[in-house]
Amino acid sequence: MRKTASVGVTGATAANLDPLRPSPPPAPAPPTPPMPRGVRTSPLGRREVAGVPYGLRVLQEGYSCPHPAGGVRADGSISLVRGGPVTAVVDTGGPWGRRRLLELLGEEGLSPKDVTHVVCTHGHSDHVGNINLFPTATLLVGWDLSQGDGRYLPHGLAKGRPYVLHPGHLEVMATPGHTVNHVSVVVRGTSLGTVVVAGDLFEREEDEEEWRALSEDPGQQERSRRRVMAMADVIVPGHGPPFRVFREWGDGEVPWEEEEEGDATTGDGRKGHGDSPRGGGTPGDVPTEEEGGTGDVPKS
Amino acid sequence: MRKTASVGVTGATAANLDPLRPSPPPAPAPPTPPMPRGVRTSPLGRREVAGVPYGLRVLQEGYSCPHPAGGVRADGSISLVRGGPVTAVVDTGGPWGRRRLLELLGEEGLSPKDVTHVVCTHGHSDHVGNINLFPTATLLVGWDLSQGDGRYLPHGLAKGRPYVLHPGHLEVMATPGHTVNHVSVVVRGTSLGTVVVAGDLFEREEDEEEWRALSEDPGQQERSRRRVMAMADVIVPGHGPPFRVFREWGDGEVPWEEEEEGDATTGDGRKGHGDSPRGGGTPGDVPTEEEGGTGDVPKS
Repeated sequence: MRKTASVGVTGATAANLDPLRPSPPPAPAPPTPPMPRGVRTSPLGRREVAGVPYGLRVLQEGYSCPHPAGGVRADGSISLVRGGPVTAVVDTGGPWGRRRLLELLGEEGLSPKDVTHVVCTHGHSDHVGNINLFPTATLLVGWDLSQGDGRYLPHGLAKGRPYVLHPGHLEVMATPGHTVNHVSVVVRGTSLGTVVVAGDLFEREEDEEEWRALSEDPGQQERSRRRVMAMADVIVPGHGPPFRVFREWGDGEVPWEEEEEGDATTGDGRKGHGDSPRGGGTPGDVPTEEEGGTGDVPKS
Repeated sequence: MRKTASVGVTGATAANLDPLRPSPPPAPAPPTPPMPRGVRTSPLGRREVAGVPYGLRVLQEGYSCPHPAGGVRADGSISLVRGGPVTAVVDTGGPWGRRRLLELLGEEGLSPKDVTHVVCTHGHSDHVGNINLFPTATLLVGWDLSQGDGRYLPHGLAKGRPYVLHPGHLEVMATPGHTVNHVSVVVRGTSLGTVVVAGDLFEREEDEEEWRALSEDPGQQERSRRRVMAMADVIVPGHGPPFRVFREWGDGEVPWEEEEEGDATTGDGRKGHGDSPRGGGTPGDVPTEEEGGTGDVPKS
């Protein structure tokens, strides 16, 4: 099912829609980057996207639907990103799925010890249910970054800086709204362009009628959704199959390779990978915390 | 170590400090309940509080301190409430503590299947780390209430109504601030009065200098802290040992039994246990959802 969803941006730029961007320098104003007139989406139609170095496979497609006995039956998407030195699981599903997740990893030839990073997009029970399967992985749950037996580490997500897993290829960005500390995983350079594993920033492809009722901050979530819609070629939502994103620029479509340079969400005004790991970019290193402050070390 | 901490309430009532209370009827205003002038706290000095039907034992005392290699070393408190038909674990610690939690339960003569309810005060990784140990329990993580393999159920927490586990004895109340959907467990009728297992609403007994930096909404958290300080005789904080609470009323102290009737946090303006389970109060039943709305069924 293909649809057209306007992002509702006419005179604005992505820069001034970003709630986490630091205040811009006073002058001169950078040239306004072009913004798409609208965004079309369509189902990806499969669960994997190849890529070098990183490809993605959706191990479990999330869902939510009315339960026949009342309430809602739901589970979250679980994704695997692998190919380079980082092997990352994004979201772990609900706690009832422990054995199933082990089976899904086994089908990929992986044991939990092979997973170097676990990222949970937020702390809801259908996403964090099985984090204890991965005691050796670096763990990011929302903005809680920990290693080992409870060493919590600083990062710049609260200040809008990405947490970089592999410079240029794989990073976590803050996408607040559904929860205050919601994050998404960005995989660059796949065969389809940039894949964003977006947790419940998007419930599913056609979620316009439902996401606000589930949001802690709909205004922030709307801005986060626009940022991701402006940069992603594929989105993995929290409760539906992955879908493609096509942006319309003027009268034509611009494929992702050509627009990448003008992507306002990663370009002007930031120091590239400001959180690049120490020591030349060993994946999984702790990002340098430039501005300090205990508020960046969620310990609780 | 004993201290005196003013709750900073002079002319206000608990009623108008409650962010979740629905708008009051226009007239007449209820009589203003008395409020304590100040609150003193002191360490409980032990990890258990007896009670009928429910007593509490802190299985793991939470902590947080600087890590010698940088960052913070932290884990959350884990509490067990038992004695009546409900056996509840409140918070499950970090994901590195799976085996340890099994041992702690074993020392109480319990296996995970004996636990009927698991309540996680919020979705941070040092509190939700081991929810998959309890696949047969009713699970509440913040405002996510689920049973079985992902059936999410409605409740009234978002509207300020408690989620009742055992009417008159054991309930969950919304205590937003540290996170938007933070909850606390209230155990009534112990040998020391009302015990509130408060997660990270309180980091530790003397946390005045630190909790705000860790809060998603310090204003809301301040109000939630006041509510709990006005009703609790013992508080189990997220990252420190349990402590007692003494309220000063005028020139003297009033023990908990005498003030219970005038407790503004549970009294006037609410329909008592508005979420009382169907069917005469079988513990663990789903509270009746009177006002409906999918927004009360967090499915993601």
